[in-house]
Amino acid sequence: MSTIKEVAKIAGVSITTVSRVINNRGYINKETRQKVEKAMTAIDYYPNQIARALQKSQSYLLGVIVPDSNHPFFSELIRCVETYANDQNYKILICNSLGNSEKEANYISMLRQNRVDGIIMCSHTLDLDEYKKVKLPVISFDRIISPTIPYVGADNFRGGELATEHLIQRGCKRLLHISGPLKIDLLPNRRSDAFRLTCMKHDTPCRVIEGEPFKLTFDYYWDFIEQEVSNYLPETDGVFCSNDILAYALYIYATRHGIRVPEDLKIIGYDYHSFTRMLQTPKLTTIKQPIDRIGNALCSKIIQMIEGKNDNLLNNAIVDVELIIGDTT
Amino acid sequence: MSTIKEVAKIAGVSITTVSRVINNRGYINKETRQKVEKAMTAIDYYPNQIARALQKSQSYLLGVIVPDSNHPFFSELIRCVETYANDQNYKILICNSLGNSEKEANYISMLRQNRVDGIIMCSHTLDLDEYKKVKLPVISFDRIISPTIPYVGADNFRGGELATEHLIQRGCKRLLHISGPLKIDLLPNRRSDAFRLTCMKHDTPCRVIEGEPFKLTFDYYWDFIEQEVSNYLPETDGVFCSNDILAYALYIYATRHGIRVPEDLKIIGYDYHSFTRMLQTPKLTTIKQPIDRIGNALCSKIIQMIEGKNDNLLNNAIVDVELIIGDTT
Repeated sequence: MSTIKEVAKIAGVSITTVSRVINNRGYINKETRQKVEKAMTAIDYYPNQIARALQKSQSYLLGVIVPDSNHPFFSELIRCVETYANDQNYKILICNSLGNSEKEANYISMLRQNRVDGIIMCSHTLDLDEYKKVKLPVISFDRIISPTIPYVGADNFRGGELATEHLIQRGCKRLLHISGPLKIDLLPNRRSDAFRLTCMKHDTPCRVIEGEPFKLTFDYYWDFIEQEVSNYLPETDGVFCSNDILAYALYIYATRHGIRVPEDLKIIGYDYHSFTRMLQTPKLTTIKQPIDRIGNALCSKIIQMIEGKNDNLLNNAIVDVELIIGDTT
Repeated sequence: MSTIKEVAKIAGVSITTVSRVINNRGYINKETRQKVEKAMTAIDYYPNQIARALQKSQSYLLGVIVPDSNHPFFSELIRCVETYANDQNYKILICNSLGNSEKEANYISMLRQNRVDGIIMCSHTLDLDEYKKVKLPVISFDRIISPTIPYVGADNFRGGELATEHLIQRGCKRLLHISGPLKIDLLPNRRSDAFRLTCMKHDTPCRVIEGEPFKLTFDYYWDFIEQEVSNYLPETDGVFCSNDILAYALYIYATRHGIRVPEDLKIIGYDYHSFTRMLQTPKLTTIKQPIDRIGNALCSKIIQMIEGKNDNLLNNAIVDVELIIGDTT
């Protein structure tokens, strides 16, 4: 391994000057900087960021805990966060809780041991108190943890309202909503609140079926529809699904059982991630969460917190959603 | 921040004993271990892994460079690698090269500065010499870099053979193959070799159209099919596509242009990642790459190299592929 001493010798400058170039501290003229950088390249010298992290108590590492990095929503969110973080010289450590609270707790402990500068928390299997104990900058996606931990989310209430109003506008008279898990107080529960309220406003009979947490696959939703939803399909003409994979499973289930979509049954989903955008039959009607804006907000806000650039008490962000009209309504 | 001294005091043992528990070194009886762990929890003490990394010259960090972590193949591969790595107490740093060689080079430099223990290289935009200069354990996915850098891949030749033979068995007489980029010598090019060879063996006329590197979206493939492939469709009755998203785009293109699949045109893809598994219309005929086994091989082999447990010269792994028969052939 090459040393800073060798770099200084080859560049013909002092060790202090090399250190200044590496750390971007103090005035260095352009010529000197170029000489030092050339010497570093010549002898393949890489400054030890771990030693610097220890010295400066900053690692430029962010932990990102998600339920499953292979789910199209989180996969896209991670790519956005990573790209933004990289532009700001931060690196991200990915953690898959797989919906398991023990795994999530172990990840938090691992991230603290590795002295990450902050944690972006997109998995929510622990009690609120566990997050409050973290003693590091934490930002939460889609859950309000405490007044001191900021959160980012899309406008879930507006999303529920847009979806429900769209179904009613399209002539639906008896609505069904398949929600996410309502036992944990997550921001997406506002979609269900908006569904109920909008139906009441329009005097439209409605029913809510609660989904399970962290069951994000097509096969799971297929079984769920068969067991928990299919009985109610004959008496409904519009379904608001809490995510696009569920909406797709319902579309396939309906068409295979002789229910015409959208003639007999209208279906609207939620998310508009890469899976939905690629899907051609059907083009799902859905509510778009702007994943890139969510990722940027999560990442920029946690970096502001780390670097002490934000003293606002209110550092939350709610980004807009959008109705995407496809073939299923 | 709590200290090791406080832990020792509360547990009523020496600092050396606490250190032994943390580092899992030397004999510690069960009772003492429990006392120390209880004390650590009580005062919220986290051993500083960065300091340990510096001391031991091991960070337990792995860099994973991919073209795009949001592509369903790499998204699934990353989840497998992360889960395996976590079981072995390693963490992964995700890097998205986005097919840009400058970005890829910057990531390698960043990973070296952060003293990762090894790099899993799934993006291949640089010259071979650049990878040889890395001077860290490196393992490569789908590319042979040098005799000292092991590689992992699925059996691309067998995959090409299976796909081509399946189309011929289904009665195709004039075959087309849309390959990946052939300019860079990647292992997936063996799929095209096998296609040509199998067609020759069966005296079947064939044509190869070369795709572009790192263009992995539906929209890109749609335009590509329109511009580069559509002219050849009337004279072909079977197409072997180098990936499933391309195969899906071709299926949609064909059906929208009055070409019946599989009656007039048979289509086979490659990958069988989560997108393909979720897709119901059509169920694609494809070649399955066992992504979990690829991920496990990449991760276990790089850890063996890091920990010096493998002195074999030949540390490569080729995993089996499988024909999945759907509705498109």
